[in-house]
Amino acid sequence: MMKFEVTTIGTGAALPARGRLPSAQVVNLGDRLYMIDCGEGTQEQMRRNGIRMQCLEHIFISHMHGDHYLGLMGLLSTLHLLGRTDALYVYGPEPLGEVIHVQLRASQTYLRYPLHIRITPFASGEVVMEDERLVVTSLVLQHRIPSTGFILREKPGMRKLKRSSVDIIPHYLRTAVKAGADLDLPDGSRVPNEDLTDPPMEPRSYAYCSDTSYTPALVQHLIGVDLLYHESTFTELLADKAKETMHSTAAQAAMIARDARVGQLLLGHFSSRYKSVEPLLSEAAAVFPNTIASEEGGVYPIGPPTSV
Amino acid sequence: MMKFEVTTIGTGAALPARGRLPSAQVVNLGDRLYMIDCGEGTQEQMRRNGIRMQCLEHIFISHMHGDHYLGLMGLLSTLHLLGRTDALYVYGPEPLGEVIHVQLRASQTYLRYPLHIRITPFASGEVVMEDERLVVTSLVLQHRIPSTGFILREKPGMRKLKRSSVDIIPHYLRTAVKAGADLDLPDGSRVPNEDLTDPPMEPRSYAYCSDTSYTPALVQHLIGVDLLYHESTFTELLADKAKETMHSTAAQAAMIARDARVGQLLLGHFSSRYKSVEPLLSEAAAVFPNTIASEEGGVYPIGPPTSV
Repeated sequence: MMKFEVTTIGTGAALPARGRLPSAQVVNLGDRLYMIDCGEGTQEQMRRNGIRMQCLEHIFISHMHGDHYLGLMGLLSTLHLLGRTDALYVYGPEPLGEVIHVQLRASQTYLRYPLHIRITPFASGEVVMEDERLVVTSLVLQHRIPSTGFILREKPGMRKLKRSSVDIIPHYLRTAVKAGADLDLPDGSRVPNEDLTDPPMEPRSYAYCSDTSYTPALVQHLIGVDLLYHESTFTELLADKAKETMHSTAAQAAMIARDARVGQLLLGHFSSRYKSVEPLLSEAAAVFPNTIASEEGGVYPIGPPTSV
Repeated sequence: MMKFEVTTIGTGAALPARGRLPSAQVVNLGDRLYMIDCGEGTQEQMRRNGIRMQCLEHIFISHMHGDHYLGLMGLLSTLHLLGRTDALYVYGPEPLGEVIHVQLRASQTYLRYPLHIRITPFASGEVVMEDERLVVTSLVLQHRIPSTGFILREKPGMRKLKRSSVDIIPHYLRTAVKAGADLDLPDGSRVPNEDLTDPPMEPRSYAYCSDTSYTPALVQHLIGVDLLYHESTFTELLADKAKETMHSTAAQAAMIARDARVGQLLLGHFSSRYKSVEPLLSEAAAVFPNTIASEEGGVYPIGPPTSV
């Protein structure tokens, strides 16, 4: 089974402190890397964590608060200096293009690689990006400035050959059968595909809910997601502050996870006031037990429990 | 004597590697902090080095290559989140204002403190900033985009009372005498100031020569500077590459130091190709012996050798 995991590079909120770094994650699907948010210092942390920058093809920016994008220009510049020639795709809210262009112009940098900047559709469920391996769709979040989340869904794989049928299918027909074809035998009879194969593994999925107030409208889009990252800036004691600043409490993140019946909840975007994430984790786990707190450089598998 | 020293936060060139960070320095004059350049990750390093961000009043940006300014937005934002209300002054080349404004607008950030952005005069010797303690002047460098250096000169202090004269000057007249006044004695006679005082200490000075090709025209402006920081990206073997990319070799930095008869030379902006700075240091020291190589977090006193 293809590797599918997420590395949380930074788990802090806007004010960096306590060794936490601003938001950035790298999703690895079969060694193809997808970045979500890119706070200051991300490239330095990728180096430390041995994440190969040149394997990046797509970068998704949730919103234009500095702790979610200020590492992007440095990363774009480093890829250029390292001699990249492959195209790079960056997705984000509308002002992102101007922010990038103004800075490339100021530094008179002419990138060696094609850089494509795409505006993320501000509507939940719209396709942001699609390649052979996955589909990324958007989630409209509720924050002080336009903010989107992203769902990364694996594409359905091939059907799996039953052990009993392996011997009767000629090698050259196996891919066709895995793709769903029936098998014509030399005697003229036909074996239906469902006798030869089992359905493919359920496609795995990861959802990233960046800065947002508690938004139950998200639940319908998150149903059955394997791993849900949801910001959890505050404990319940500061629920008012969460509301005012349009962030979520850990318990609110867990309510979304519970109501969407996700596999596992990953917490992050912890306020610098919390020395330990323990209170956030325990408040969330009281609502949704299968919850973990992200750590700097932590790697989390994406998939149903049996595959973990 | 008031503390006067510089901390080199980052000593690397454009491509970060080998634990070197992009350019940033903090000059401390009597616990007032002046920042010169601000590469990505500077705020994080200030935290690690225990440099108090809120003591910053002035930030000087030499040019708009990312490794010299990409940490600025994050720093501005952190000062805001920490509740700063004191004015902050940022000096740099023309495009800096747009780069800051576009990003403040994108994040809809309304800073709690007044931020003044001033364009650095692109002419050597022009006053960039002046406060009670020092005068900062500009240096026109030669680089691929407009780039300036900065000279920070202490203002002359008060004259020093001779030990022999302390007893005959009434307390309330001491400040006047230190400022240069003669002393009228009760018998009607007058003691000239030079009999009462010694001249003030020679004002100390620090020069920062950011990215530049070898530019002998700088020498006239650097005569007698106590500490000269000069970029030294390459060894002599790569003198052609230095010329092509408009950087300097370590030996060229040392020629500037020697010809300007500075007190000490501080090297930095080391290309990532050098694992050790030893070859750069030895090539420079062959030309100008009193040379040191800057280190991440290194602190270097600014002043004549006796005061060090």
